[in-house]
Amino acid sequence: MSAHDIAQAVRSGQHSAVGIAEAALTDIAARDGAYHCVTRSLSDRALAVAAEVDRAVAEGRDPGPLAGVPFGIKDLFDLKGEVTTAGSRVLRNDPPALRDAVLVQRLIAAGAVPIATTNMDEFAYGFATDNAHYGVTRNPHDPERLAGGSSGGSAAGVAAGLFPLGLGSDTNGSIRVPASLCGVWGLRATQGRLPVEGSYPFVASLDTVGPFAGTLGDLRLCFEALDARPLASVDARHLRIARLGGWFMADMSAPMAKAMDALAAHLGASELIDLPEIARARAAAFVISAAEGGALHLPRLRQRADEYDPAVRDRLLAGALLPATLIFQAQKLRNWFRARVHEAFAEVDVLIAPAVVGEAPRFDQPLIEVGGSMVSARANLGLYTQPLTLAGFPVLTVPLKVPGLPLGAQLIAKPGREDILFALGDRLERDGVAQARGVNN
Amino acid sequence: MSAHDIAQAVRSGQHSAVGIAEAALTDIAARDGAYHCVTRSLSDRALAVAAEVDRAVAEGRDPGPLAGVPFGIKDLFDLKGEVTTAGSRVLRNDPPALRDAVLVQRLIAAGAVPIATTNMDEFAYGFATDNAHYGVTRNPHDPERLAGGSSGGSAAGVAAGLFPLGLGSDTNGSIRVPASLCGVWGLRATQGRLPVEGSYPFVASLDTVGPFAGTLGDLRLCFEALDARPLASVDARHLRIARLGGWFMADMSAPMAKAMDALAAHLGASELIDLPEIARARAAAFVISAAEGGALHLPRLRQRADEYDPAVRDRLLAGALLPATLIFQAQKLRNWFRARVHEAFAEVDVLIAPAVVGEAPRFDQPLIEVGGSMVSARANLGLYTQPLTLAGFPVLTVPLKVPGLPLGAQLIAKPGREDILFALGDRLERDGVAQARGVNN
Repeated sequence: MSAHDIAQAVRSGQHSAVGIAEAALTDIAARDGAYHCVTRSLSDRALAVAAEVDRAVAEGRDPGPLAGVPFGIKDLFDLKGEVTTAGSRVLRNDPPALRDAVLVQRLIAAGAVPIATTNMDEFAYGFATDNAHYGVTRNPHDPERLAGGSSGGSAAGVAAGLFPLGLGSDTNGSIRVPASLCGVWGLRATQGRLPVEGSYPFVASLDTVGPFAGTLGDLRLCFEALDARPLASVDARHLRIARLGGWFMADMSAPMAKAMDALAAHLGASELIDLPEIARARAAAFVISAAEGGALHLPRLRQRADEYDPAVRDRLLAGALLPATLIFQAQKLRNWFRARVHEAFAEVDVLIAPAVVGEAPRFDQPLIEVGGSMVSARANLGLYTQPLTLAGFPVLTVPLKVPGLPLGAQLIAKPGREDILFALGDRLERDGVAQARGVNN
Repeated sequence: MSAHDIAQAVRSGQHSAVGIAEAALTDIAARDGAYHCVTRSLSDRALAVAAEVDRAVAEGRDPGPLAGVPFGIKDLFDLKGEVTTAGSRVLRNDPPALRDAVLVQRLIAAGAVPIATTNMDEFAYGFATDNAHYGVTRNPHDPERLAGGSSGGSAAGVAAGLFPLGLGSDTNGSIRVPASLCGVWGLRATQGRLPVEGSYPFVASLDTVGPFAGTLGDLRLCFEALDARPLASVDARHLRIARLGGWFMADMSAPMAKAMDALAAHLGASELIDLPEIARARAAAFVISAAEGGALHLPRLRQRADEYDPAVRDRLLAGALLPATLIFQAQKLRNWFRARVHEAFAEVDVLIAPAVVGEAPRFDQPLIEVGGSMVSARANLGLYTQPLTLAGFPVLTVPLKVPGLPLGAQLIAKPGREDILFALGDRLERDGVAQARGVNN
């Protein structure tokens, strides 16, 4: 059931929120073993929040637009009474959070029900959701393949039908990559639009938080609750759309190239726009991430490095050694690159690009092909997402309707213009070009 | 003659601007050998600008509030047709500037006449105005002593009476230190208030540019021209004034301690305010300066390190090696410290502090005593100025009326409240507590 349908059923009294929550918890217990999206079921909290929703319905109060809708929560959002592990072992004996993260508060205020915490790369540093402490999340469309990361547990949980909405975070692509590989909708909103308060930071100057959903309508309901205001309505018929060329056309797999050509043709996006210095923009996002992440963790790494996931620890330690000189260069490039992306939007409303090079890599060969070489999927799945991070523009990840494994595209708009992205996503869904894919049993 | 008197004489036709400029150029040629404030006399430009002023007077047009007033220019401001050396040898074969720096434009628009470029520490990195390429600027009050730096040529030139106004820059104290040691007025305006465009940068996140003058009235005329708007009038009788304690009372020489006690008593500033973590604030300003300065120069240092002043080169190279981790910490501390300084102003309008530990050090012993040790004056004369840099608040340097060599105090106000500082400075000048000291022959 979609979030929309659950909310309608609960609001009308057809289903109880408690009944929905119990069914979701039972479903997670029965089916999550195959995917390992969930790190903790939030049974007590879910039933208590659901009971509140049912009480509102019983008393004739508005239970909210997401009444009774279960949602999964990447384990870097604070949940009152729970320890926020951020996928780490080193935080797991920390005191429980005193309050919910702001995004969690807003979803609960809209009637939604926190159902489970979800798996992630440790401290969000990776595109694999392959966690040394809490295991690997499997792609619901092929359990021998990666779900993508770092918000893989939330994306895969939506794809597996364990919960209709999920919360994730996206620093360099951690929503866009798993949404694409799992075949669901995901949004990296304009940087700064959705409040990060109460989420464990990774790279303060690049971090964003946002939603996954199985339909665009659900993503819209969720985003409006997260943003605490309704989206403007936009006419999608006359949008000027162009395709990012160069960097964003190299390295695509054959199925992705075919899917992107079809998408561009459908949208009449014949114009190619080449953003300048993409390799440098990606490098700048890399070094800013490494250095800010390294600085955040260095005091703890000095004492307890052995408790970190080795793949993360080594990247953080290397990041902590980067000279400031490099960061000033990266920050300067960032300002310059952002101005160039603004210029690219002078003549267009939406830019389109692939979100990943191709289908989800297999566990036993976690590599992707870039520039003719096979490179680490964990570090490189963000090839097309990471440069856009640097500009901070909003990006909607669209699950393309393709044969075979899921593939996602990025729709990019100007800062603050999520309304345009939703309008175009809606058009693509109605035209049958985009469709999330669920695995329900 | 003060700037005020020159402007009046030129505006009334009593003197010509060309005559004033010729006299100033003659005076510089005759007397600057003793002090070495000036690196280049701007004869042609000065006479051309002065002729324009005279033409305006002759034609009955308003020649501006600074009509015919000569000003000295720290050699990091662009002057059309001149090479901006920033006190370096490595830039001296660069192409000449295509236009004047914005502050120079504004002074010329107000009728003032650019008369000479002035000496500085190379790339503004030092508190001594001891330059390996262009020599040492001598303190007009004792030519065996330092003028302070890095804007020492402009401060000493005003003290020596070579020009009534000077332009300088202040990153960590480069206006406040030489103003104090030379016994003139100097202003570090609120960071961001006066435009830095057309000045050679040192530390983009801390740099400011501003004026020196021999009377507070002249400083006001100059600041209003630089700021391109008149200052509000403030009643100085009811200002709440407190004194900075702790760090800002340790290490003062006996004459400075006496002068500060007298100033506090005169102002009824009996309350002591202790800002927290001053040592860390100064350290943060140090590492931000070193790292940003190092990053700016590193590409050139890789090729031409041998052309730098050794004292500057070694600090820049060391700065370029600082890890980014340290800079993130410093930036975080900066935000925190700025909030604490704002809090300190909840109950007061002005804070007072010494600008330097004591009188100007001698050349043959360029050391000051800090914490019982003798340390480099070049690096440490900013002991009391540098922590305030980190907060970005405006600071007026007041030449105290003391026996012996000049000593300066800092008056600090909230961001944007230069009007309060001018009102209080005016009161101190009228009360005979503050007085700039000139050396005219």
